[in-house]
Amino acid sequence: MTYQPPVRDFTFLLRDVLKIERYANLPAFADASIETVEAVLEEAGRICSEVLAPLNRVGDKEGCQWSPDFTVSTPTGFKAAYAQFVEGGWPGLGADPAFGGQGLPAVVNLAVSEMSSAANMAFAMYPGLTHGAYSAINNGGSPEQKQLYLPKLASGQWSGTMNLTEPHAGTDLGLLRTKAVPQGDGSYKISGQKIFISAGEHDLTENIVHLVLARIEGAPAGTKGISLFIVPKFLPDADGNPGARNAVKCLSLEEKMGIHGNATCVISHEEATGWLVGEENRGLPAMFVMMNEARIGVAVQGLAQAEAAYQEAAAYAKDRLQGRSLTGPKNPDGPADPIIVHPDVRRMLMEAKAIIEGGRALLLWTALHGDLAKGAADEPTRQKGEDYMALLTPVLKAFLTDRGFLIASDAMQVHGGAGFTEAVAASQHLRDSRIALIYEGANGVQALDLVGRKLAANGGRAVMTFFADIDAYVAAHDGDTVLKPFLEGLAQAKGELQEATMWLMQNGLANPDNAGAASTDYLHLFALTGLAFAWAQVAEAAQARIAAGETDPYYANKLITGRYYLTRVLPESGSRLAKLKAGAELMMTLPAEAF
Amino acid sequence: MTYQPPVRDFTFLLRDVLKIERYANLPAFADASIETVEAVLEEAGRICSEVLAPLNRVGDKEGCQWSPDFTVSTPTGFKAAYAQFVEGGWPGLGADPAFGGQGLPAVVNLAVSEMSSAANMAFAMYPGLTHGAYSAINNGGSPEQKQLYLPKLASGQWSGTMNLTEPHAGTDLGLLRTKAVPQGDGSYKISGQKIFISAGEHDLTENIVHLVLARIEGAPAGTKGISLFIVPKFLPDADGNPGARNAVKCLSLEEKMGIHGNATCVISHEEATGWLVGEENRGLPAMFVMMNEARIGVAVQGLAQAEAAYQEAAAYAKDRLQGRSLTGPKNPDGPADPIIVHPDVRRMLMEAKAIIEGGRALLLWTALHGDLAKGAADEPTRQKGEDYMALLTPVLKAFLTDRGFLIASDAMQVHGGAGFTEAVAASQHLRDSRIALIYEGANGVQALDLVGRKLAANGGRAVMTFFADIDAYVAAHDGDTVLKPFLEGLAQAKGELQEATMWLMQNGLANPDNAGAASTDYLHLFALTGLAFAWAQVAEAAQARIAAGETDPYYANKLITGRYYLTRVLPESGSRLAKLKAGAELMMTLPAEAF
Repeated sequence: MTYQPPVRDFTFLLRDVLKIERYANLPAFADASIETVEAVLEEAGRICSEVLAPLNRVGDKEGCQWSPDFTVSTPTGFKAAYAQFVEGGWPGLGADPAFGGQGLPAVVNLAVSEMSSAANMAFAMYPGLTHGAYSAINNGGSPEQKQLYLPKLASGQWSGTMNLTEPHAGTDLGLLRTKAVPQGDGSYKISGQKIFISAGEHDLTENIVHLVLARIEGAPAGTKGISLFIVPKFLPDADGNPGARNAVKCLSLEEKMGIHGNATCVISHEEATGWLVGEENRGLPAMFVMMNEARIGVAVQGLAQAEAAYQEAAAYAKDRLQGRSLTGPKNPDGPADPIIVHPDVRRMLMEAKAIIEGGRALLLWTALHGDLAKGAADEPTRQKGEDYMALLTPVLKAFLTDRGFLIASDAMQVHGGAGFTEAVAASQHLRDSRIALIYEGANGVQALDLVGRKLAANGGRAVMTFFADIDAYVAAHDGDTVLKPFLEGLAQAKGELQEATMWLMQNGLANPDNAGAASTDYLHLFALTGLAFAWAQVAEAAQARIAAGETDPYYANKLITGRYYLTRVLPESGSRLAKLKAGAELMMTLPAEAF
Repeated sequence: MTYQPPVRDFTFLLRDVLKIERYANLPAFADASIETVEAVLEEAGRICSEVLAPLNRVGDKEGCQWSPDFTVSTPTGFKAAYAQFVEGGWPGLGADPAFGGQGLPAVVNLAVSEMSSAANMAFAMYPGLTHGAYSAINNGGSPEQKQLYLPKLASGQWSGTMNLTEPHAGTDLGLLRTKAVPQGDGSYKISGQKIFISAGEHDLTENIVHLVLARIEGAPAGTKGISLFIVPKFLPDADGNPGARNAVKCLSLEEKMGIHGNATCVISHEEATGWLVGEENRGLPAMFVMMNEARIGVAVQGLAQAEAAYQEAAAYAKDRLQGRSLTGPKNPDGPADPIIVHPDVRRMLMEAKAIIEGGRALLLWTALHGDLAKGAADEPTRQKGEDYMALLTPVLKAFLTDRGFLIASDAMQVHGGAGFTEAVAASQHLRDSRIALIYEGANGVQALDLVGRKLAANGGRAVMTFFADIDAYVAAHDGDTVLKPFLEGLAQAKGELQEATMWLMQNGLANPDNAGAASTDYLHLFALTGLAFAWAQVAEAAQARIAAGETDPYYANKLITGRYYLTRVLPESGSRLAKLKAGAELMMTLPAEAF
């Protein structure tokens, strides 16, 4: 089947739930009227479903090919599709107009990312990483670096990568050994091997801009001695065009379970020429700008694969005839009923729908706060935006990828035996979605970031604001009969999350292992509460439409799906709380040799 | 790393927990002293770890090859390994000595199956399906059929298959069209196409015995017109040796996500010669003998893939150095600590351990009831054995495969980025384990079998006996301080399960969709309770050893792992109960076009 871009859902969220037209006074939103945004999303949806989606299976089957001359070719059709993508201006949608971008808000850019990632995740990673490189240089680069690189990255003429991981240094970047030797002319010679470099080499663009973490000779050990460098594949000449070939090359491609259409490279820097971005030994904070953005991007991938897999499963469930409804034939003239009549098939589809639609709402809500962090007129709104982005980034990354993978698995299950064959798309969605739990910080690292860093930051300001906002929302809608179940579910979940937060404060200080032991359950409890908050706002907006006389079942269906979330997904919150309160003791007692 | 056969765990369960020596008076157990069983398991463990395990990755990479002459070759090494497997007498371990088998109890055979399936699932499926064919003929075949086929199947000289599914008839076998035309000489001509036939064609044995569901000309429509046939690849000659080639052939192999080493065939019967097994139109009940046994076999696969994946993850976690413990360096002389110091890594390993060890205990406990169903001296014990096998087969099949897949996913997560590459085994375990949720009745079908058939059978006798046994166990150990948390957890879960059962009785009759909507959550609640019961018995046996002065930490570790189960896994029972009580309404309301 063809991927159906969920433009209607985006438009409803942006217009009715987030009411982005309120922000027309802010620069990023000045040209973002609902009509404009809808047109942009329609057009993006078209290229995603018509150009990128048909190449998804091709990319999976063919993969990328490495040649002994250290070049890599992408799957059939990727090059032409990329040219079309660039032609349409999609890489620069959210980039600064000063560098040739269209300057649209992140909340719109993120909707486009969901569609490209659902249509073809492996393809979408190429521009996705470029966007991260753009942000890192935009935040930390010199004016000259910005002038040289940002227009090429914004247009998609050049692409970007993140060169972080080394064989012995993954999560623990403090161990990295790639070294940088100053040349006295402002440049450095970079030497070392990097692994798992997505989009590290390919034939889509005339140049590739690697952002590389390395240690300047004599720098302190650990994370405080790491600097960030720009290492382009071709050194820009005086006119900014690709000149001499730099000594950075792809030694091989990883053979992976999924995302075969994206080249995952072993990259060797052999005295490659590079330039420092920002200050010496401040590479890690600079890289985190890129990383945090990438984390939201990975959350989007989790959601996108869930959506793509769900669409396939729903289509199959409406088409496949097998068995009869428990309440009597629904397709009496056919040999059997479509399997969507069976409650257990519905269970999988409804759960997917409830998490996807609630997750999308929370993701856009958070992205909007990101836009406000940068562009709001007043400091309190900017600060709150920043707080929420920091707090919710790990939550969204881990929850949406964990659940995205489970939804892809349920989508395979709906297909029965056919789902396990490569004749349908279910296997690819399951395999592609799996990487998102690992890269850009494994989900356990996200959970530690949440409990160890984000909760405590600024005396707990972000999480306390979050609780206060929920309390205020519940109080403001007191007495609303339609919203009642939503408010009750939200209040209950928020109570459990608050209890868990208190438990963490009391027990995490006494023994840090308690915080580590609780982290994943806490993160999921946080996300479940976040989705309950998002669903309440979605229900409010849908109900407003219905009250205004709107008869389109889209709105009534939102209320049903939201209530499904409350009764069939949210109850997990209680068991998450019970588990995390069990503490670290039993988890940590066994000696290593008992495993 | 090398697969480590969990012989110690099997021996502890058989000797201390299940006390199989109590049954030495029964035929199957007469030669099953603990010493004999331990020696058998040690020897089986050896061939599994030394012969089968090294071929696991080979099988995944090479897959099976189909040739235009309709033959299929298995991966390099499979043929020699199979010969060794046959040489050792492993295919006939549980078969009747009258047909050349060794007549060991199912509870021992199942332990061997776990090891072969953990070492090489794709390989183990060949003898696994043979065993199913053996049982179907043993139960329904004529004396002549038994004499002709059973010795060859028991020895592994011939192999077996199940030919059920057709393109339009998977779960709904009533739709199947393969037809059988009587030839007047006792034989039939079978025509039709079957798909997803595991081990359907290969080069391991001199003959392949297909057990085929087909409709005799003029038979009633639906499931009441289906008969079971034996269709051998080579027709046995007068001496019972493979003679003329039968008109049954493999048209192609499915391209699948996993189990590449097993040939999943499209099988065409083109007026193939077959012989009826049992009565006309009674094929489905006859096939269910095979199917039920296969379902327990699939439960074992779920457990086995979990164990294999867990072992890889545990080894990696002890070896990989990354970061420092939250409570201070544990490997101060190294560049970092092994990642097993991190609570969130431990969480994944402990959860795997708690489910694997508890699941293994429940599986063997159930298999022992299966042995008692056949061999016990008194009728009440036989009846209870049969009841428990029937009740717990769908529970074990769905729960252990669902959790087995999740454990394989967590095992990949422990590996970080390396886990997603095909350089380590994690991807294969994840991919291989996934099929087990689908075949031999998708897990949703298991859940329906449980709530729709098994609960109601004989006026609910099986489930009421189960509750009474738990109550009696809890009462009998009242006051035992070590067992106290186990008894409390068990009683609480059993209370929830009983509440859920009552809810089902009240609401499932009023609206069958309520039963369907509740079925998967009910099955998981059942399994969680079952594992709590199993863990209590394991804890009791471990504590008895400790009380007797045993200082081996194996026993104390059992208590810790069991308590981990109670505090970190079992709390899910409450949310399962809450979800299922939500009923069918919100699940069934949306019209199909809203998906």
